[in-house]
Amino acid sequence: MGVAMLMPAPGEPAQARPVAVAAVAAGDFRQAMAQLAGGVCIVTTDGPAGRAGFTASSVCSVSDEPPMLLVCIKRTASAYPAFQGNGELCVNVLTTSQQALAALFGGKTAMAERFASGPWVAGAGQAPALQGALAAVHCRIEQRCSAGSHDVLICQVIALSTPQPGHALVYFNRGYHALPGTAPA
Amino acid sequence: MGVAMLMPAPGEPAQARPVAVAAVAAGDFRQAMAQLAGGVCIVTTDGPAGRAGFTASSVCSVSDEPPMLLVCIKRTASAYPAFQGNGELCVNVLTTSQQALAALFGGKTAMAERFASGPWVAGAGQAPALQGALAAVHCRIEQRCSAGSHDVLICQVIALSTPQPGHALVYFNRGYHALPGTAPA
Repeated sequence: MGVAMLMPAPGEPAQARPVAVAAVAAGDFRQAMAQLAGGVCIVTTDGPAGRAGFTASSVCSVSDEPPMLLVCIKRTASAYPAFQGNGELCVNVLTTSQQALAALFGGKTAMAERFASGPWVAGAGQAPALQGALAAVHCRIEQRCSAGSHDVLICQVIALSTPQPGHALVYFNRGYHALPGTAPA
Repeated sequence: MGVAMLMPAPGEPAQARPVAVAAVAAGDFRQAMAQLAGGVCIVTTDGPAGRAGFTASSVCSVSDEPPMLLVCIKRTASAYPAFQGNGELCVNVLTTSQQALAALFGGKTAMAERFASGPWVAGAGQAPALQGALAAVHCRIEQRCSAGSHDVLICQVIALSTPQPGHALVYFNRGYHALPGTAPA
């Protein structure tokens, strides 16, 4: 994970400069980002472009007044065209008992088969909500920013499904972990 | 956390519609987002607009080829003007032994006093890096998207500091937690 120094451009002072983008290998970056723990979510959509969903760990809260969050999606993902063509999505925050669903929605399984597993319900928006999730947050996609291989979908929250108690499923250091939440009733 | 239904507009079919944004209270949204675990980071900057840093849990990986990440920052934060005026930042992913720093950088302490605590080093970019962090990722801010009360800073990764072993400091359900990482040497 060495640090390369660039030669100064003509006219620039000869001092240490930030490293060129090319100096950071994708594998080294993935290793660094594996140190950033994140709750595991299944993000779903439905609408004119069809129903789709994928397992995401790049979801974060943005603003609480107004309530907004964001989701990152790879443009080559099989779910991408549906998220591109629809206006809504639902972020489902998983419990440890939903780990098998995380694997299913993170693999190559066809969309219809993904939704055949798990108690998916209509929810308050157009996108399916997962019953038993720690939280299910229904959103309208407001802004799409292209960033490298991904799009960042910035969303307005339009409704919340009733949350369920459970332990959080967290991805860290290339593996799943549990964090104690409210105990299931 | 009830779900309000909107009356259909004239000419629209009378069916269940997504809930109005105003129907989701900030407190209910915060409660839902408290269920989304996140690694705790201190994000720093330095440059023409001065040195600043804040504790963030809204950081996520975006793309690995090219390596990119994003950071959310509130526009009323005391650190905001520095991040607005500078071109670089550093994301420092904290270990459990750095929890006191997380509190310091998340409070009202003056910037000079924040940086007087902890082994801050010059790092590979302009922004200070925290020695002993699980990862220190140096970035150039490429794009700023306004979203509600926050800006989303989309960044190109320009260098990585050498990572240190340790247990991850994670925020979940309104409290700090530890996740086992590589044991310190």
